[in-house]
Amino acid sequence: MIIDIHGHYTTAPPAHQRYRDEQLAALGDPRLPPPVPGEISDDAIRDSVERNQLRVLRERGGDLMLFSPKASGMEHHVPDQATASAWARASNDLVHRVGVLFPHAFAPVAQLPQTPGGDLRPVIDELRRCVGELGFVGCNLNPDPSAGFWTTPPMTDEYWYPLYEAMVELEVPAMLHVSASCNANFHTLGAHYLNADTSVFMQLVESDLFGRFPDLRFVIPHGGGAVPYHWGRYRGLAARLGRPDPGELLRNVFFDTCVYHQAGIDLLCRVIPAGNILFASEMLGAVRGGDPRTGIAWDDTLAYVDNVELSGADRQAVVEHNARRVYPRLHRRLLEQQRRREVDRVAAAPHAGLR
Amino acid sequence: MIIDIHGHYTTAPPAHQRYRDEQLAALGDPRLPPPVPGEISDDAIRDSVERNQLRVLRERGGDLMLFSPKASGMEHHVPDQATASAWARASNDLVHRVGVLFPHAFAPVAQLPQTPGGDLRPVIDELRRCVGELGFVGCNLNPDPSAGFWTTPPMTDEYWYPLYEAMVELEVPAMLHVSASCNANFHTLGAHYLNADTSVFMQLVESDLFGRFPDLRFVIPHGGGAVPYHWGRYRGLAARLGRPDPGELLRNVFFDTCVYHQAGIDLLCRVIPAGNILFASEMLGAVRGGDPRTGIAWDDTLAYVDNVELSGADRQAVVEHNARRVYPRLHRRLLEQQRRREVDRVAAAPHAGLR
Repeated sequence: MIIDIHGHYTTAPPAHQRYRDEQLAALGDPRLPPPVPGEISDDAIRDSVERNQLRVLRERGGDLMLFSPKASGMEHHVPDQATASAWARASNDLVHRVGVLFPHAFAPVAQLPQTPGGDLRPVIDELRRCVGELGFVGCNLNPDPSAGFWTTPPMTDEYWYPLYEAMVELEVPAMLHVSASCNANFHTLGAHYLNADTSVFMQLVESDLFGRFPDLRFVIPHGGGAVPYHWGRYRGLAARLGRPDPGELLRNVFFDTCVYHQAGIDLLCRVIPAGNILFASEMLGAVRGGDPRTGIAWDDTLAYVDNVELSGADRQAVVEHNARRVYPRLHRRLLEQQRRREVDRVAAAPHAGLR
Repeated sequence: MIIDIHGHYTTAPPAHQRYRDEQLAALGDPRLPPPVPGEISDDAIRDSVERNQLRVLRERGGDLMLFSPKASGMEHHVPDQATASAWARASNDLVHRVGVLFPHAFAPVAQLPQTPGGDLRPVIDELRRCVGELGFVGCNLNPDPSAGFWTTPPMTDEYWYPLYEAMVELEVPAMLHVSASCNANFHTLGAHYLNADTSVFMQLVESDLFGRFPDLRFVIPHGGGAVPYHWGRYRGLAARLGRPDPGELLRNVFFDTCVYHQAGIDLLCRVIPAGNILFASEMLGAVRGGDPRTGIAWDDTLAYVDNVELSGADRQAVVEHNARRVYPRLHRRLLEQQRRREVDRVAAAPHAGLR
């Protein structure tokens, strides 16, 4: 099967964004009534994904997508915790419903109610709710809740440890994914996302975080930002700093394939071991449409992966097995679905009751 | 000939750093005497480069290096203009002396006395002094004088226009190069440098800066940060934003080869036209030593370039001709040196006076 580990609900029904707008308005004017999440019907949810992510997933031969709220919409820079918590809850409830409506096509991944430098307890509470009560398989963790000003501690700081402890206990990895940039120097999709990927990797090179948390796992999206392209730089810097070779980080760090041209995917697969690459498209995400020169959609990354000379085992690792390994709750969810399908098949077989 | 366009005077005699330390101390305690640049002999300068950049340049078959003050030492975040101006002047005077002592091996490139959001007139004054009086061929321009906090306007903002007008008038390009990061999230060499390269390119994608300044030229160092690896992302984003294909920027934007492994250089040369790639090593810079697996020094980028299948003309463009085109003052300097050598040869020939 083919698992796309990086999809966002960028096409949620408009009532969801209206709720967010009302939240922000209420922050600005306390006389306004407290906002409540908009009513959204199952049909509206079905329609919003059937015409979009589900259609594209199927057209390209994908089976399942890890599905999280729109990354640029997380807006962790808004400092009010109650607002952040209510927004994350509403966003997570919505992707949960997508997963309930299409259990074989979407597995939910959580938005966390982070705020810049804020208390992590509500963040951990929402992660526990999503994983424990709703069956989420992972989370998106924002390394810069300040939205382009980077005023919060590096990901290797003790500040984050309570969250890491919860992640390890719950057996969920985090995709390290920023939200929209509020800094005019950083275009959200063309700079801030990639910079975050690059910056966090170097933070990990500098630190012994995984010595302390050997079971913590991070997925760095967008092909790892600048990292694979500069792999020699990281190896050389690590040596100069007296740190282990960055290859050692690959026990805990994984890269997705959200790199939108053949040369980039070729480099990724040449530099990073197949066991650390997870198929992903980020669709519907940063880019829309396709390359007029090749006719290939920019984010049809499976087309690029299929052009790489990988062994059958490596290819299957990239498109499926690594995802099951990095997201053990996804693996168990898939096994459970398979078991149920078999039970159903047996039950539906003629004379089933006679056996 | 082989021209390395990206070298820094990271080995300046200690008296230079002592001057900087005294500057910073004087800022903190106005009772201290006003600092003056340390006395540095020609022999000390000779020694500092002969054992370092010049030795390595020669060992690797290079002929000439564009040589600028240590990038991480520019420290544009210190807001006092008089301090910034005196520091840039002292640093530039020193690389000028290197160029005078080794005129065939080093051509000087200027540090600019930027401050965060500060007046650009002293910056332009120092550029004019360096180019007009001292024969500098280019400058390093810091897109984030706030040192990792990115509080200053994007490079496409009108704030920068007076400097761009001077650069065009003086026929000097800028390498867009940040200084040391003061933000714990960004390792200077492993994140901040690459993030700046990436961010500025996307600023250029978003803007029509070169419509207004068609003769302005930028060199983006470190192989363009994340840009060539994500070239498809930039093409897709440009299309989505209704901007021209990023290939259009290549009339004005150039990338250096400071990418420290074969796979990275291969990607750079596959994605970016040979006319936009300038050979560079950044030595003695971010990395020291070599890859134990290959025995190749990390920053021996000529070794990687020579492993790329380039036509003879393309290879010569990368290692020489592009540099002469992007830095026209370098080209004229080299022509003048050649003319003088020929005059000297004729004068030194037997019976020269009889002809």
